[in-house]
Order: sequence, then C-alpha cells, then structure tokens
Amino acid sequence: MTTESLDALFAAAVEQQSDTPDAVADAADAVRRTLTAVLRTRRDLPGLTDIAARVHALADDLGKRAEPARDRVERMWNGESGGARHSPVSGTRNAAALPVFWERREDGSVEGRATFTVAYQGPAGFVHGGVSALILDVGLAVANRHAGTAGMTAGLTIRYHRPTPLYRELEIAAWRESIEGRKIRSRGEIRVDGEVCVSAEGLFVAPRSGVSDGDN
Amino acid sequence: MTTESLDALFAAAVEQQSDTPDAVADAADAVRRTLTAVLRTRRDLPGLTDIAARVHALADDLGKRAEPARDRVERMWNGESGGARHSPVSGTRNAAALPVFWERREDGSVEGRATFTVAYQGPAGFVHGGVSALILDVGLAVANRHAGTAGMTAGLTIRYHRPTPLYRELEIAAWRESIEGRKIRSRGEIRVDGEVCVSAEGLFVAPRSGVSDGDN
Repeated sequence: MTTESLDALFAAAVEQQSDTPDAVADAADAVRRTLTAVLRTRRDLPGLTDIAARVHALADDLGKRAEPARDRVERMWNGESGGARHSPVSGTRNAAALPVFWERREDGSVEGRATFTVAYQGPAGFVHGGVSALILDVGLAVANRHAGTAGMTAGLTIRYHRPTPLYRELEIAAWRESIEGRKIRSRGEIRVDGEVCVSAEGLFVAPRSGVSDGDN
Repeated sequence: MTTESLDALFAAAVEQQSDTPDAVADAADAVRRTLTAVLRTRRDLPGLTDIAARVHALADDLGKRAEPARDRVERMWNGESGGARHSPVSGTRNAAALPVFWERREDGSVEGRATFTVAYQGPAGFVHGGVSALILDVGLAVANRHAGTAGMTAGLTIRYHRPTPLYRELEIAAWRESIEGRKIRSRGEIRVDGEVCVSAEGLFVAPRSGVSDGDN
C-alpha cells in the first residue's frame, strides 16, 4: 500500500469521526448516554424496573432484526464502514467506546482529546488503569498507521506516573519511534495540563505482505 | 486490614457478582444487550431513527433523575455497593463491561471466564489487543486482593502470543508472583483451550498505610 493510499485511508477514518448522518451512530450515542445515566441511578429510583423492561424489549426487537454476529464481524471490516466505527475506543457506533477522536499533527504524531466519565472509573475519581492501557494501545496503532506502517501488537508496556482524573480533558499523544525491518516501535502518553499521567511503549510486527490496517 | 477482613471483602465482591435482585444491574444488562444489537444493526434498518429517539428520551429521563456524577463517584466507592459493580470490566451495573466474573482457585490464583462479543473486537473476529490489556490489568488486581495485598498499578507489560478469538470461552488466570516490601509482582494469562493468547506482568505498589482495595 502506498503512502498516498494510506493518506486516503486515514482521511477516510477521520471522515468517519465527523458528524455525517449515521442512524446507527445516533442509536449508539443514545445507548451510551443511557449507559452513563444507569451508572448514576440509585436502585430505588421509581419506575426503574419498568425502564429496564422497556430497554430489554428494544434489545429483543433490534436483536431479532439484526444480522447474525458472525456475518456482522466480517461485514464491519470488509464492507460499508471499514471497521473504525465499531472500535471499543474510537467507534461512534460502539456505545462501550467513549469515543476518542484522533487528529494528525504537523510533527507526524497523532493526538486524541478525551474526557472520561464514571463508566471508565478505577480508583474513585480516576480513570481505570486498564482503560488507560486500552486507549494507549489504540493511540499507538493510529500513530503507526499515520506513519505509514501498521502491524499487529507484539508487546505493550504501560507505566503509571500519576492518577488520571475523570471529567478533565486529557491529551493523548502517540508517535512512531523507529522502524527496523518488520519491527515497529511506538510511544504514547496520556497527559493532563501537560503533565504525563500514563506512558506506553509498543512493539508491533508488520505483516510479511506489507502494511496492515491494524486495529483502532 | 487483616487477611480475615480481606476474605470478607473478596466474599462480598463475589456475592455482588451473583444474581441477587438489582434493578440497576438489570437495567445495565438491558443496555448491554442493546449496545451489542446496535453493533449488528444496518444503517437502513426500518424504524432505526425512531428507536434512537426512544433511547435518547430514556437517557434524558434517567439523566434528569440521576445523581450528579461527582456525588455518584464518591458514593459508588464508599456507599451502598463498594464499587466493583461499576467496574468497566467486572461491573454488573456497567453496560460497557462484559462483565467478567472472578473465582478463587485452590492454588491461590484467581480465574475469570469470559466470552467476548463484537463490542470488544480488534482485528476481524478477534478480541482487541487493548481490551486484553484492560482485562488482564483487572485480573492482576483481583489476584493481588485475593493474595491479601493490593496496591496501585505502577507498570504493566503485555505480550501477545496469538490472536484471541471472539465468541469462544476464554480462561483468564492471574496470580501474585512475589511481594517485597511495598512492591508486588503479579502475572496473568488469557487462554483459549489451554493455549496462551496474551500474558501480562504487573508491578504494583501497596500504600504506606497498608493494603488498598485497588480497582477491579
């Protein structure tokens, strides 16, 4: 794959992040809002059992009319939308994703901005350490793709420098450090007000056939 | 905190995993089912816009009657349920969580069983590498708590051995390897049919005041 077609791929991924009308993404956004509201709900809220029953009925209806999961797995990646919309981190159609949006920077790195809610909490008031690992894994994959050579993750090392706060805008930066044969090394950081909360180093292996799209 | 009270804490956490009536967990389960169904939905599904509008209305209603997020952050950890129910991995009340349930084993390790859906997909048909990191981070924290000394994560190293399949029952094992002063080292693995897909090593630091509950 040439740099030009990777540019096009990246542009397409950024395009997917934008607010183009997407009924599935809108439904996912509604589910995401409900997910967060449920976490703030007390068990004695009047009508809660009825609300749960209504959501179960919706799930039944959608489930009956949805495509089989295995078919959908293939189509999500090969078909209409290319997959990024379904990512557990960046996916506008995945209500489990924040989602985090990524931008290219002039210096060749990529940057995400994100404000985490209580759904991603570890210690009280802070982002879950494993969620930080998940976000950084994705940041490194996006950075690799931006740099022109993506691959499968072979190893990931995460260091925790200070607690990462919920409800504060975080900056997630990631960049390719080096490439040597099929081995790609990349780094990333989650920062708040310019201070590093969590850092990551990743080792990726490009496929023999050339670059892969990785996962994001 | 004594070993006895940690035992009680662990027992309470396992208790929380069981099917005791919990209207919030039931609502979360309904949201989780809807989240997965949305991912399998085509954008041209008849009535999708109407479904999204109904879910948005539910989110509005719940959101208006829910507690402020910041109050809720505190209460979730100090109040009625101890927090594990809200975990992004193990939380029955968190629709972003699978959830993964954990059990103690005779040999002192902990084990989780999980079958991942398309919401946790990375490469087509496989679990997202960052999601594996998130799960293992939690497994290590649960193992530490089981072993009697939990702490904050200082570092986490993840190695990817083979792709981790979606829709297959996975075994997640984790155990404390060593403890030296405040430094705790733990290991974990995600396996399918006994083969290691992903392994993790974690370094944790116990608080000066004694053990902490960590995050799970």
